[in-house]
Amino acid sequence: MAPTPNPRLLYAKIPSEELPVAGEHLVFDPKPTIDLDVELKSGQFLTKTLLLSPEPYMRERLRDQSIISYSTPMVLGQPLVGFGLVVVVRSEKEGVKAGDYMFGFTPWEHYTVQPYVDARVDYTGYPAYTFDMDLLVLQPVPDPQGAFPWTAYVTALGCPALTAFIGVEKLSGAKKGETIYVSAGASGVGSIVIQLCKIKGLKVIASAGSDSKVEFLRSIGADVAFNYKTTPVAKALKEHGPLDLYFDNVCGEQLEAAIDNMNMNGRVLCCGAISEYNIPREERYGVKNLSLVFKRRISFQGFIVADSPEMNARFFAEIPPLVAQGKIKTEAHEFKGLENGAAAFLSMFDGSATARPVLVVDPQYGS
Amino acid sequence: MAPTPNPRLLYAKIPSEELPVAGEHLVFDPKPTIDLDVELKSGQFLTKTLLLSPEPYMRERLRDQSIISYSTPMVLGQPLVGFGLVVVVRSEKEGVKAGDYMFGFTPWEHYTVQPYVDARVDYTGYPAYTFDMDLLVLQPVPDPQGAFPWTAYVTALGCPALTAFIGVEKLSGAKKGETIYVSAGASGVGSIVIQLCKIKGLKVIASAGSDSKVEFLRSIGADVAFNYKTTPVAKALKEHGPLDLYFDNVCGEQLEAAIDNMNMNGRVLCCGAISEYNIPREERYGVKNLSLVFKRRISFQGFIVADSPEMNARFFAEIPPLVAQGKIKTEAHEFKGLENGAAAFLSMFDGSATARPVLVVDPQYGS
Repeated sequence: MAPTPNPRLLYAKIPSEELPVAGEHLVFDPKPTIDLDVELKSGQFLTKTLLLSPEPYMRERLRDQSIISYSTPMVLGQPLVGFGLVVVVRSEKEGVKAGDYMFGFTPWEHYTVQPYVDARVDYTGYPAYTFDMDLLVLQPVPDPQGAFPWTAYVTALGCPALTAFIGVEKLSGAKKGETIYVSAGASGVGSIVIQLCKIKGLKVIASAGSDSKVEFLRSIGADVAFNYKTTPVAKALKEHGPLDLYFDNVCGEQLEAAIDNMNMNGRVLCCGAISEYNIPREERYGVKNLSLVFKRRISFQGFIVADSPEMNARFFAEIPPLVAQGKIKTEAHEFKGLENGAAAFLSMFDGSATARPVLVVDPQYGS
Repeated sequence: MAPTPNPRLLYAKIPSEELPVAGEHLVFDPKPTIDLDVELKSGQFLTKTLLLSPEPYMRERLRDQSIISYSTPMVLGQPLVGFGLVVVVRSEKEGVKAGDYMFGFTPWEHYTVQPYVDARVDYTGYPAYTFDMDLLVLQPVPDPQGAFPWTAYVTALGCPALTAFIGVEKLSGAKKGETIYVSAGASGVGSIVIQLCKIKGLKVIASAGSDSKVEFLRSIGADVAFNYKTTPVAKALKEHGPLDLYFDNVCGEQLEAAIDNMNMNGRVLCCGAISEYNIPREERYGVKNLSLVFKRRISFQGFIVADSPEMNARFFAEIPPLVAQGKIKTEAHEFKGLENGAAAFLSMFDGSATARPVLVVDPQYGS
């Protein structure tokens, strides 16, 4: 068969501690091709990429391989790798057949011979707190048959949603009548936290960075929603708090304001720090009120999804019906085509995403 | 009977956020007298003060009554109030008789008609996280009859030691083979944490602010001891860590260094913040690495002694024998006489205490 174009989004250069630049660090490469009749070895299968999920944690992976962190780094010169929805084109792997849908880690390119190898990292020598991201292999998922859109695999059923679920259901101890503050409320994590907490009967205070996102927060049930760019967080929390819980994926100034407004025995769940991902450490916001941790007997718990594999089954049993019934709503900002992949990725950090970004690689699977 | 001198240490003026000044905010007042034959009403008893315990938490109580915090404030124009050892002179209270020794909250003066009233605060209207310090009433304690010195009631058996006990035994989850860092290791809390953790088989890294204190840390079993004024904490922890536990009573820069050197699932116990007690908030050290909380799945737990009354009985059953057997050692910096009360109090903050300070009011009870 004639070669088929197989464009990809390359991790072309290690960014400094600042925001990566499209065309420099993240480069769309239209030139590669693939022979779709390529011979597959036993255990291999060929997939076509349908949807890709830009997620904040990916930023940390764009670093020099010598720097140790909680995730293994991506491989320079290879496509980005992250969660995505694919369909199987051909298979020489037992239990996987053409037409199967799968969700999990896949390179940002049109077609991939799975399991991908070139973009993998040798895990040897990493400390225990570093999770081997390549363990997040593709798993079969059902065709929703119209019960919910395909993009829900990236939004309500994606890794950020699972993060929200683990935080609320396993770690938060959230009780009816308590008050929670959710920063980045329109994000993939925040929007699900809000809705799970409303189902549990909490009072939910949430913020986002634009008025249209604030409207979305209200539409999904937030009792108090505000634009943190026009209303100081400290002021809003003082007015609507105090807080029993803070779900933190922002860190810095928002964390400080939340601590200032915590109740006795307040709990802080930390699953991200988006305010810090593109800022050199010395320029980050220094939190100056940590003495309140003992004064109010506050607890912090940091977590990532990978620590709670036992929650996956519950998540996939409980959330899809809620999504199908419209009890959990999501909003996606769809970017079309891999050529817009860098823009989709950067939209999480530069404020241009109007909602959780989804990169639609095959237009049939967008909305 | 002729009036007997009853000097006291007055809380004379509310300090700013900086270090209080002896003679201005804390004033020795030699003038008061008491008639030791004063008529006692039913329920009252007269005590003679033997030892007083300057403790860091007292600083927070020296504030404007309108400022809400975790402890009720002290009463301006009255003596300081804190933990002390007293002996009963006369009693009209059932169950309390002349010659009884008692330990608990008592005003910083020679003689007191108990329960003291003038230096008490009306607790009405405080939030749940504010503990009513006046609940820490005097409790009978036995004469140690030489098994340990009387000063042990302030050192190994005092409130800081109980804080250490609750932290290690109830909250830390400390396991044999783990590594803990203890800041302010020569303090009332730190010195007991070190010894309890050595009994449990942990590797203990500890720091203090002078070479003689560092020697004390080694003498009580610290595996690594360093002077944080001459060895940067970050450097020492990098060399001797990583840490599974950090027992924090300092906050700020030490907390940041500990977080930088935490293992996966590291735990931070927060019971104080002595680096911040005499510094305005805007000048405090801002902690810039809190994103590591999620990256390494770190937990923080703030606590104060008052939350765990169920631990008191275990503490008083387990610790006195260890002290009597020499398995828990303490060192005290004895200040003699109420006229040195302000110096004793300030010694915790200005670095002049060579060990846990004890204010010896009756010289027979010093060493």
